[in-house]
Amino acid sequence: MLSIALIGAGRIGTMHAQHIAAHPRARLVAVHDANADIAHALGAQFNAESCADPQTAIHIGDALVVASPTATHCDYMESAARAGKPVLCEKPPDLSVERVNACRDALAACENPQVQIGFNRRFDRTHATVQMRTAGGEIGKLEKLIITSRDPAPPPDDYLATCGGLFRDMMIHDFDLARFILRDEPVRIFAAGAALVTPAVVSSTASFTTPSTDSTAVDTLAVDTAMVIMQTASGVLCHINCSRRAVYGYDQRVEVFGEKGMLISDNCGAAQVAHYNDKHTAAHPPLPEFFLQRYWESYRRQMDAFIESVENSNAPSPSFEDGRRALLLAEAAEESMHSGQWVAL
Amino acid sequence: MLSIALIGAGRIGTMHAQHIAAHPRARLVAVHDANADIAHALGAQFNAESCADPQTAIHIGDALVVASPTATHCDYMESAARAGKPVLCEKPPDLSVERVNACRDALAACENPQVQIGFNRRFDRTHATVQMRTAGGEIGKLEKLIITSRDPAPPPDDYLATCGGLFRDMMIHDFDLARFILRDEPVRIFAAGAALVTPAVVSSTASFTTPSTDSTAVDTLAVDTAMVIMQTASGVLCHINCSRRAVYGYDQRVEVFGEKGMLISDNCGAAQVAHYNDKHTAAHPPLPEFFLQRYWESYRRQMDAFIESVENSNAPSPSFEDGRRALLLAEAAEESMHSGQWVAL
Amino acid sequence: MLSIALIGAGRIGTMHAQHIAAHPRARLVAVHDANADIAHALGAQFNAESCADPQTAIHIGDALVVASPTATHCDYMESAARAGKPVLCEKPPDLSVERVNACRDALAACENPQVQIGFNRRFDRTHATVQMRTAGGEIGKLEKLIITSRDPAPPPDDYLATCGGLFRDMMIHDFDLARFILRDEPVRIFAAGAALVTPAVVSSTASFTTPSTDSTAVDTLAVDTAMVIMQTASGVLCHINCSRRAVYGYDQRVEVFGEKGMLISDNCGAAQVAHYNDKHTAAHPPLPEFFLQRYWESYRRQMDAFIESVENSNAPSPSFEDGRRALLLAEAAEESMHSGQWVAL
Amino acid sequence: MLSIALIGAGRIGTMHAQHIAAHPRARLVAVHDANADIAHALGAQFNAESCADPQTAIHIGDALVVASPTATHCDYMESAARAGKPVLCEKPPDLSVERVNACRDALAACENPQVQIGFNRRFDRTHATVQMRTAGGEIGKLEKLIITSRDPAPPPDDYLATCGGLFRDMMIHDFDLARFILRDEPVRIFAAGAALVTPAVVSSTASFTTPSTDSTAVDTLAVDTAMVIMQTASGVLCHINCSRRAVYGYDQRVEVFGEKGMLISDNCGAAQVAHYNDKHTAAHPPLPEFFLQRYWESYRRQMDAFIESVENSNAPSPSFEDGRRALLLAEAAEESMHSGQWVAL
Repeated sequence: MLSIALIGAGRIGTMHAQHIAAHPRARLVAVHDANADIAHALGAQFNAESCADPQTAIHIGDALVVASPTATHCDYMESAARAGKPVLCEKPPDLSVERVNACRDALAACENPQVQIGFNRRFDRTHATVQMRTAGGEIGKLEKLIITSRDPAPPPDDYLATCGGLFRDMMIHDFDLARFILRDEPVRIFAAGAALVTPAVVSSTASFTTPSTDSTAVDTLAVDTAMVIMQTASGVLCHINCSRRAVYGYDQRVEVFGEKGMLISDNCGAAQVAHYNDKHTAAHPPLPEFFLQRYWESYRRQMDAFIESVENSNAPSPSFEDGRRALLLAEAAEESMHSGQWVAL
Repeated sequence: MLSIALIGAGRIGTMHAQHIAAHPRARLVAVHDANADIAHALGAQFNAESCADPQTAIHIGDALVVASPTATHCDYMESAARAGKPVLCEKPPDLSVERVNACRDALAACENPQVQIGFNRRFDRTHATVQMRTAGGEIGKLEKLIITSRDPAPPPDDYLATCGGLFRDMMIHDFDLARFILRDEPVRIFAAGAALVTPAVVSSTASFTTPSTDSTAVDTLAVDTAMVIMQTASGVLCHINCSRRAVYGYDQRVEVFGEKGMLISDNCGAAQVAHYNDKHTAAHPPLPEFFLQRYWESYRRQMDAFIESVENSNAPSPSFEDGRRALLLAEAAEESMHSGQWVAL
Repeated sequence: MLSIALIGAGRIGTMHAQHIAAHPRARLVAVHDANADIAHALGAQFNAESCADPQTAIHIGDALVVASPTATHCDYMESAARAGKPVLCEKPPDLSVERVNACRDALAACENPQVQIGFNRRFDRTHATVQMRTAGGEIGKLEKLIITSRDPAPPPDDYLATCGGLFRDMMIHDFDLARFILRDEPVRIFAAGAALVTPAVVSSTASFTTPSTDSTAVDTLAVDTAMVIMQTASGVLCHINCSRRAVYGYDQRVEVFGEKGMLISDNCGAAQVAHYNDKHTAAHPPLPEFFLQRYWESYRRQMDAFIESVENSNAPSPSFEDGRRALLLAEAAEESMHSGQWVAL
Repeated sequence: MLSIALIGAGRIGTMHAQHIAAHPRARLVAVHDANADIAHALGAQFNAESCADPQTAIHIGDALVVASPTATHCDYMESAARAGKPVLCEKPPDLSVERVNACRDALAACENPQVQIGFNRRFDRTHATVQMRTAGGEIGKLEKLIITSRDPAPPPDDYLATCGGLFRDMMIHDFDLARFILRDEPVRIFAAGAALVTPAVVSSTASFTTPSTDSTAVDTLAVDTAMVIMQTASGVLCHINCSRRAVYGYDQRVEVFGEKGMLISDNCGAAQVAHYNDKHTAAHPPLPEFFLQRYWESYRRQMDAFIESVENSNAPSPSFEDGRRALLLAEAAEESMHSGQWVAL
């Protein structure tokens, strides 16, 4: 029985706790949260200790799950690594590349650090099947990858102000998914963005009225609609498009195109009810509300994989380096959006 | 916290145990099985007592779940009702209408018997949505109902010999689903059957070579492919077709047709991966393996509904009478298959 | 260049004229219609002679197309056969089995009669592909065939009064399609019907209120909703369901199920426009208006096949006997609906 | 009756001739082709004069259709305009922007020049429906447009050497479709390309091995895989991706995303046959072979629109200016691919 401590008892932390509790070979032993009350409540529900000091939690468990605010991720990963505890940490590792690089060095100084970053989409059944079948050669040599990623509705303004912008906060999942499927590193990236969903918050520099490349001067935090093109050294092209709002639900699609065919990971999770009337045929219900509904199973499979890697002392995957690479792509995308040209990676 | 006892620790009983354990307001307290070893193993896994005597289990819990062999269902329902315990019992209540009628009388003699029959399809998200939207008037007055129900592969021969035949064992789910959606009783039924999947086991009377109505003389237990038509008093027509083998997986579809449109509950559960190559486009993976995969969520929702009905002292649904009615339809279908004409209900 | 005469210049005759005119190796030479004005107008449009006497038209052309009222079909087929002219005649050959049998004998007395019956669905690209792939063994031994056939709206009352009823007028297409795909003759048939779409016109005998088998006493001409089960000598089961009204358009589906898989001929012809909003996803436009839209291409391919069979002096298909067999099934269905039991064929 | 002359009797010219001949109010009167034999053969088939001199053909007809090699398009458009004849000319107007600008000036000097450019996709039923419903406000304010456009197989090498490259030859259709749906002009464009399908023909400058922005130095004519991002003044983003090879057929999709929903113009034209077996479910046949199969109906509707505009003396659409704009986008895309940055329009 693997005992796991949890830091962060919010919405995602609570879900992690449920998956730990349901796992046949793991149990939740400790919960810490900056808000002691919710840590206590969650601990009580799963018969786990609530710890005022996060270090206590880290040391009680055999392993650690981190679902606290982003700014604390690196600190907790470093603490866990120093204590010799495997850790599964939510994405992104940090919003700052500098901090992430420093954390990389700190981890490297520890003995056998075991860090898994919470890019749960790798564990989604449809995405993972598409990746596996692509890697298995079913569509031959890869030529194009197209990822569509749209949230149902924009987050609250205060979240928007601190999340680091669409590329770091939202598209970072798609950057990781792209690297997962490409199995090759992009060597350059181009990005374009716009503030279309909530145009009121666009800064004064974000004018699209002048037909010049100066119009790239959109405020990073205001961007809610973005398109990216990446290219690998062998020429493979990858397109990602993100939107902060899709009224029909959480839209998550992947299209992989190669010399021998195409594999599509289509939306899933909506009830398979088709309605026919005098206005339309085969109308299906809206897509899942959001990521907890859409990716519930993938979060569970992610936890299963983490527990197995700890049990077998395997290197966890996706790794800390995967988290760092995705962040580098987000930063480069932002730079490209402002410069209006390719950014080499 | 509702304490629940379980009788029957096989594949379905184990699944019920998991759903009970995961429920926030219920726990498994006792397990009985004719095989004491598997009862003990399952009890140990969920920290529940294993009871050699089923009556002990019945009395320990606040409520009872029965997943034992069919022939024991009525006995356990009667015991539970006499002990004043609500019971969720797997379908069918029994293979014999006489036994079921006797059980009905025995239950009626108890004080406030609470019996729910395990017709889990009513709790399937897509089927339930279609039923609800039909009942809500979305397609106007109902005109036709068409149910397709195909198992991936035939059961073992020894199961076939004792299961009561396709109508009682397999189509009984579809009879219940039909009644659930029609919200009206069929007044007559016609059935046709054939032994096409495993023709070797067809009895000598099951000759299809004579082009006469005598060819209805198919051996009931050998039937693995069947079609039924039912009609309600208002003329609504219902078609059900079952097969014991569908090589592409567990095929479960419902089509409801009315004056203002149509609602379809389509297959679900397969990964939404679409494959394109020079031979085909949009090829998806096979359907779910079988009912535990396809209806896992509906079993969970069924357990939730049972627990809620116990908590609120509501009449459970589907009721014992729903179980009896479905069995009557199965028996009438069998009679019609042999007589080659409508059987009035 | 094959010269073709046309009898009947209504909606379907006009379409035939267009297909003849567009054919690279055929031309329209003569048109006759009981209404001389519309014959004249259609002839003028395609530079063809309009003939007051149908016999003149028959003798002018190398071949004949008949799209006149059903009651005249047999007369014209007999005239054409006597004149040694190949003929493509609309379905059904007649509403009366007696007349059709007499016509069969009359044709048999002619030298090399060449008659093709206008069961155009055999030439529909999707239906034909499904038939061909089934015949090619792709799904192994056939086990079940399910045909769904729904008109968008009921025909006018005066048409209903003279069309011979749903089985002879509408389901006759599905009977032919069933024989085409089964490639084996049904040996028995069962039918159930109801008047649900236009209940006002149900005769006094069509009461569904008595829960007895007497309720089969529905007025044949009033039936607008029907279900049929047929079975072949080898046990294969076939279900057909028809409705005179489907508000979402002309619904035409075929499902063929066998030991190695399933082939579905799905609805086609609607624009592939998918609409997503906060109420639904993937909503498509309604199905085609009616048969001329849905089967336009199959009518063209049917004409191509007729012309080729004439050019090559091949036996046309579907044959007069195919037309007679479909009518026999319609008559047997009607008889079964009234008797409430299998009718042997 | 409108008499129409045709210049160019190749594959596309022949198709135009068929649509003219089938039109109830038009006829083909003259055919010219640089190859007199094929002009003669096509003329004979449709009872039209074959002209050795293209000017003769131009003057015989009431209107002109041009399907000759691209380099001759502008000459014939100018001749027709000078002769006061409306003209429908295949795309692109020319490969050279200079020539097109000169032609624009020459046309402007004529009295009431009537020129329609053959961007047939505007007349495709699904694309046109999506455009119309988008323009009608069904998905609110437009935010993103995504066009997928893939040919089944690359053209022959000699065609590749003279076609002007993927952007001018192939993506030009998508540029026009984008302008048609956006109903707003892009103000900047970014393009990336690669030679993945036929890497052997990549020039020595087209190295993708250096992870730098120098790798944009791909040979224009060798590009067979490309991705473009365009943006309008109001910030709307448009992505186009093209490939010269898709083994599953001719892939043509449009996705329009807005504040209130999404409209997709999906692939059409494949038979709606779904195949299920132990390997897959719902596998459909490959997509249409190529543009003549996929867009046959849209070519017909394009001809209908041209004839109607001539009959009513309306300004034809898409106009010569639409053709020029699409070419400007192609040229800018090429420039961007080499510069690695936005090109302002």
